[in-house]
Amino acid sequence: MTDIQEHTDMSPSEHLPVEPAVLRPADDQTWDAEADVIVVGTGVAGDTTAIHCADLGASVIMLEKSAAPGGTSAKSGGGMMVPNNSYQRALGDVESKEDFIAFLARVGRPLLYSASHPTFGLPQWEYDLIEAYFDHAGEALTRLEELGALRVMHIAGWPSYSDVPEDRMPRGRYVVPQDDAGEMSNGRNAIERMMRTLDELGVEVRLGFRVDGVYVNDAGAVVGVRGHDGAASRSIRARKAVVFASGGFTHNTPLTREYMNGRIVGGCAAVTNTGDFLQIAKSLGLPLHQMDEAFWAPVVWEQALAHDPTLIANFNCAGDSMLVVNKYGDRIANEKVTYHDRTRSHFLWDPTLVEYPNFLQFVVMDKRCRDRYGYDGFIDLTAGNFIPRVGETSPYFLEGATLEELAERFAERLAQHPDEAAGTRLAEDFAESLRSSIERFNGFARQGRDDDFHRGQTAIEQFFMGLDNQLRPAEADPDDSAGQLDPTLHPLADEGPYYGIILAPGVLDTKGGPKVNATLQVLDGDGRPVPGLYGLGNCVASASGQAYWSAGCTWGPYLTFGYIAARSIVGEPEKHVGAGRDTARVLV
Amino acid sequence: MTDIQEHTDMSPSEHLPVEPAVLRPADDQTWDAEADVIVVGTGVAGDTTAIHCADLGASVIMLEKSAAPGGTSAKSGGGMMVPNNSYQRALGDVESKEDFIAFLARVGRPLLYSASHPTFGLPQWEYDLIEAYFDHAGEALTRLEELGALRVMHIAGWPSYSDVPEDRMPRGRYVVPQDDAGEMSNGRNAIERMMRTLDELGVEVRLGFRVDGVYVNDAGAVVGVRGHDGAASRSIRARKAVVFASGGFTHNTPLTREYMNGRIVGGCAAVTNTGDFLQIAKSLGLPLHQMDEAFWAPVVWEQALAHDPTLIANFNCAGDSMLVVNKYGDRIANEKVTYHDRTRSHFLWDPTLVEYPNFLQFVVMDKRCRDRYGYDGFIDLTAGNFIPRVGETSPYFLEGATLEELAERFAERLAQHPDEAAGTRLAEDFAESLRSSIERFNGFARQGRDDDFHRGQTAIEQFFMGLDNQLRPAEADPDDSAGQLDPTLHPLADEGPYYGIILAPGVLDTKGGPKVNATLQVLDGDGRPVPGLYGLGNCVASASGQAYWSAGCTWGPYLTFGYIAARSIVGEPEKHVGAGRDTARVLV
Repeated sequence: MTDIQEHTDMSPSEHLPVEPAVLRPADDQTWDAEADVIVVGTGVAGDTTAIHCADLGASVIMLEKSAAPGGTSAKSGGGMMVPNNSYQRALGDVESKEDFIAFLARVGRPLLYSASHPTFGLPQWEYDLIEAYFDHAGEALTRLEELGALRVMHIAGWPSYSDVPEDRMPRGRYVVPQDDAGEMSNGRNAIERMMRTLDELGVEVRLGFRVDGVYVNDAGAVVGVRGHDGAASRSIRARKAVVFASGGFTHNTPLTREYMNGRIVGGCAAVTNTGDFLQIAKSLGLPLHQMDEAFWAPVVWEQALAHDPTLIANFNCAGDSMLVVNKYGDRIANEKVTYHDRTRSHFLWDPTLVEYPNFLQFVVMDKRCRDRYGYDGFIDLTAGNFIPRVGETSPYFLEGATLEELAERFAERLAQHPDEAAGTRLAEDFAESLRSSIERFNGFARQGRDDDFHRGQTAIEQFFMGLDNQLRPAEADPDDSAGQLDPTLHPLADEGPYYGIILAPGVLDTKGGPKVNATLQVLDGDGRPVPGLYGLGNCVASASGQAYWSAGCTWGPYLTFGYIAARSIVGEPEKHVGAGRDTARVLV
Repeated sequence: MTDIQEHTDMSPSEHLPVEPAVLRPADDQTWDAEADVIVVGTGVAGDTTAIHCADLGASVIMLEKSAAPGGTSAKSGGGMMVPNNSYQRALGDVESKEDFIAFLARVGRPLLYSASHPTFGLPQWEYDLIEAYFDHAGEALTRLEELGALRVMHIAGWPSYSDVPEDRMPRGRYVVPQDDAGEMSNGRNAIERMMRTLDELGVEVRLGFRVDGVYVNDAGAVVGVRGHDGAASRSIRARKAVVFASGGFTHNTPLTREYMNGRIVGGCAAVTNTGDFLQIAKSLGLPLHQMDEAFWAPVVWEQALAHDPTLIANFNCAGDSMLVVNKYGDRIANEKVTYHDRTRSHFLWDPTLVEYPNFLQFVVMDKRCRDRYGYDGFIDLTAGNFIPRVGETSPYFLEGATLEELAERFAERLAQHPDEAAGTRLAEDFAESLRSSIERFNGFARQGRDDDFHRGQTAIEQFFMGLDNQLRPAEADPDDSAGQLDPTLHPLADEGPYYGIILAPGVLDTKGGPKVNATLQVLDGDGRPVPGLYGLGNCVASASGQAYWSAGCTWGPYLTFGYIAARSIVGEPEKHVGAGRDTARVLV
C-alpha cells in the first residue's frame, strides 16, 4: 500500500471545485463506467458500505481522491465503540437500548437532556440515528468478522470518557483491530484487511479519483458522479445510489475559517479531507448542520502551522509531574481530560480583555516526567504523545534550565508566528505566575487531590495512567520514596531542567454536513430524502451533538451505518437518466 | 397603535408552516393583490426598506404577522450605531473606513483578525456588508431625518462596548430616538414615527398577515408570497422583489434546541419571531449561516420560563455592592461586562463534572445596592434592570435575612423547575462559598481593583455607573464615608438582608439565516443571488461574527441596509409569472 505521506503535497485550494457541482445528464450522455453503487471515499465508512453492498450482490465502484486508500481511518487507532457487541454479551453484559441512548443524550446534548423526555431531549434525527446504531452495531461487526473484513479484540476494561450515572455500562463496548498475529493493531491494519475483502468481493477501487460533481436526473434523483482521475474528467453512472463517505473539511481553510471562527489550527484528518461533498451539498441546496462542531483534539501548535501531514493530535497529555498554563502562567483546566473536551478549554473568551487567553496553552513538565513518559510507540495510549523518547529530540519540544529559560523558549516560538498566535504573548510575569501555579499544583499532588480542576477523578484518566489497565499496567516510580497518592498527580521538581511544548486547538476531523435519516439517506431542507443519495462518516452531520461519546465513537457508528446503508441501497430501484434540459438551475 | 402585549398569546407551534413553503404559480394564477415590492416585517429593517422604496417611487405592500407593527424594534431601546454620522462629522470627527472595518473585524472575528490581511481576516461577505454599512450609514440616517421618518439625538459620550486599540473612535457613533418634545425616546416611538411616514408615502401595511411561502417562477425568481390574514389564504404578487425583514427564531423552540444546543432559555424578541423565513429558505435550498450565534443577553430565569412576553433582557447587571456566583457559590466572571459577552459566561463546560456549572447564575446584593439601584424607568441605562423600585416587589427578586436564607430561596426556586434547571442544584456548601466569594470581592472593592475579573476596567462599565455620562451622572453615596475608589465596586454589607435573582442565558434575538450580498440580495449555495429575493435584519446571517459590536449595532446597520436594498430593488426588472409545471421539486 502506498504510504499516506506520498500524496500529502496537495494544497487545499487544489481540492476546491471550479466547475458546477450539480449537473444534468446530457441527451446523449455517455458514461465512462457504471455500477449499481458508487462509493466515494475508502475510510471505514465507505469501505464497510461497499463491502456490505457487494456482499448483498450489488456491483460497486469505489472512488478515492488519494493515491492510497483509507483516508483518516488509515491514520487512526481504529478503535470501535460497538454497543451490545458479541464479546460484551458473551460476558453476560446485555445492554438496554434505552440506557444507551440516555447516556449518549446526556453527554451529547447535556442542556437538552431529560430522562423523562421521549427522545431524552435529543432532536429526533439524532435519536433515530443513535437508535439505528444501537440496533445494528453488534450484527454489523459480526458480519464484517464473518466476511474476514475485520478482526478485532475486545478491550473489556476500557472505560467510557465521561463518568455519568446515565452510563449503565461504562466498560465493554470497546474493541480494537487485531493483526494477523493476533496482536492489537490500528486503523491502517484494519483498512488493509477491508481492502483485501473488497478485492475478493470484486469491488473496483479507483485511486487518485476526485469526485467534484453529481448528476441529477429530471426527477431529482442522483444518478452518477463527475470527477477527475488525473488524466481526464470522467462521468460514472450509479444505477441505484451514490454514497458519499468522503470525510470532513479539516483541510479546507476557507470553510474552517467561515464555520469554525478560527478555532482550528490544524487537524489529523487525511489531507484530502477538504469538504468536497459540502460544496456539492450546498449546490444541491441541502442544509448543513453541526458545522461549528468537530471531533476536537489539541495539536502541537508549530507542527500544525507547518502543515505536517503526519500530525497526530495530542490524545492524552502524558505524564504526572506536568501541568498546562495559559499566557498568564495560570493553570486553566484539568490536563487529563480526554482530547475532545480538553480542546474546549482553548475556547474561553475574555470579553473584558477582548482576547482568548487560553487559545494557545503551554505544557510544562520536569525531567522526571520527560524521562518516564516519552513516546514509546505504544498505539492508542500514547498516540499523539509529544514527549520524545529519551535521547531523542523534537523540533517543537522545548527545554529550559529554569522556568525563566523555558518561558524564553516559548516566547521565541510565539514571536516566529505573530499573526497565527492570535494575539498571544506571554505576560511579563509569566514565569513568576507559572512558579506560583506549580507550587499550588504541587500541593494538590502531595495531597493526592486536585481541588481546582479535579484532575484524576474519572475512570478514563486513571486508566490512561495504567490503573485497572491490563494493556499497560502502572509502574511504581522506584525513585519516588514518598509514594504517589494519585497516578495522575506528582509534584514537579524544584530544580530544572524543565520541558514544554505549545498546544493549540485542532480536530481529528469535522462533524458537520447535511443531515441523514436512519437509513443514511441525505435529507433536503424539507426533511425529505434526496433520491439516490446516501452519506455517512465525517461528511454528514453527526448525531453526537457536542460530545465525543467515548473511544471509538467514529468507527463504531460508521461501520454500523455502512451495514445499514447497504441494506437500504440494494433495495433501491434503478434510476433512469433523465433527458437534458436547459434550466436556470439544476433541479434538486 | 395596538399594544404589543395584545398579540402575544400565540404559542410558537402556531407559527410553523404546515404547507409547502415554495410554490410554483399556477397557469391561471390569480393574485389577491400586487405591488412592485413586498416587505415582510415592520421592524426597523422592513420599515426603512419600505420607506426608501416608496420614496424612490415604487409601490409597496408591507405584511406584518402581528396585530401591531414594529416587531422586536418596538420593544427595543432603539439606539443606533451610525458610523460617520452627520453629528460626529459636525464635531470634526471624520472616521476612516479602514479603521472602522478593522475595529469590527477585531471584535467580530478575534481569532481571524489580522491587521495586514486584505479583509482584516473577515470572510469576504462579512467584509462586503460592513463596508456597505460604513459607506451608506450616514446618508441613510440623514435621508430618514429628511423624510421625517426618524428624529434622533446624538449621544456623543456613549463609549464602545470593547476597549481595543483598533477602535480609533470609541465615542460618537451612537444616536437614539427623540420624541416630538425633543426628549430621548425609544424604539416604540421611532417605529410609530416610521409608520406615520409609511402612511404618508402611501404604503399599504397589512397587520395580522403571516407569510408562510413564496412563489417562484420558472426562471427561479421569487415573484410573490403566500400567507394568511386570519380569514383566508392570500397570494400577493411582487413585480420587482420580495424582502424578508421578519426577524429571528428566538421563539421557535425546535429550532433553538437544534441550532443553539439548549443555550437559550428565553429572549426578548417579539413573540412572533419564530423563524418563518428560515423554513422558506431551507425549502428554497439556501444554506444557513451563523445559526449558533445570537445577540445574547442574560434573562431572568423564572420570567423566561413563564414565557412572559414583556420580558426585557438584563442589559446591565445594576449595582456596585453586588456580585454573581454559580451553583458552587464561586464568582465566575466580570459582572459588569455588557449583556452579549456576559451571556457567554453561562456557556462554560466542565467535562470532568460533565456539567455546565455556570448555566444558571445567582446575583447577590446587599440592601444598600437594592435600595440605590432599583429600576427607575430610565430607558437604556436600566432596561432590563431586575431590581424593583424601593417599596415594590417582583416575583423573581428574592430576599433572605442571611446568606443562608437567600440560598434557601434560590434552592426553592430551582426545585420548582428541575428539568429546566439542566442539572443545576446548589452545592451543599453554597452559602459558605458565597461568603468566601463575598469576602474576596469586598477586598477587591476596598482596594478599588478587581484582580480576578477586571470589573470596572472598561469605559462602558464606568459609563453605565455614571462616569463621563451626561445622561445620568454618578451620585456620591452620602452614607459612604470611606468614599468609593471605583464606582462599579463596593463591599457588600456584613449583615443582611441580602437580595438576589437567578439569571439564565437568553437572547435579544438570533442572528442566523441565509447569507446576503452587499445589496442585500439573498444568496444560494453557489453564492449567486436568488432573483427577486432580498433579506435584512435578524432573519438573515449577521456579518457581526461573534460580536455585539456596540450599542445600536442592530438598528444602525439595518436602517442602512434598508436604504441600500431599496436602491437596488427599485432598479430590478419586473419578473414574469412563469407558467405552472409539475415538477418533483420547485425550482430555485
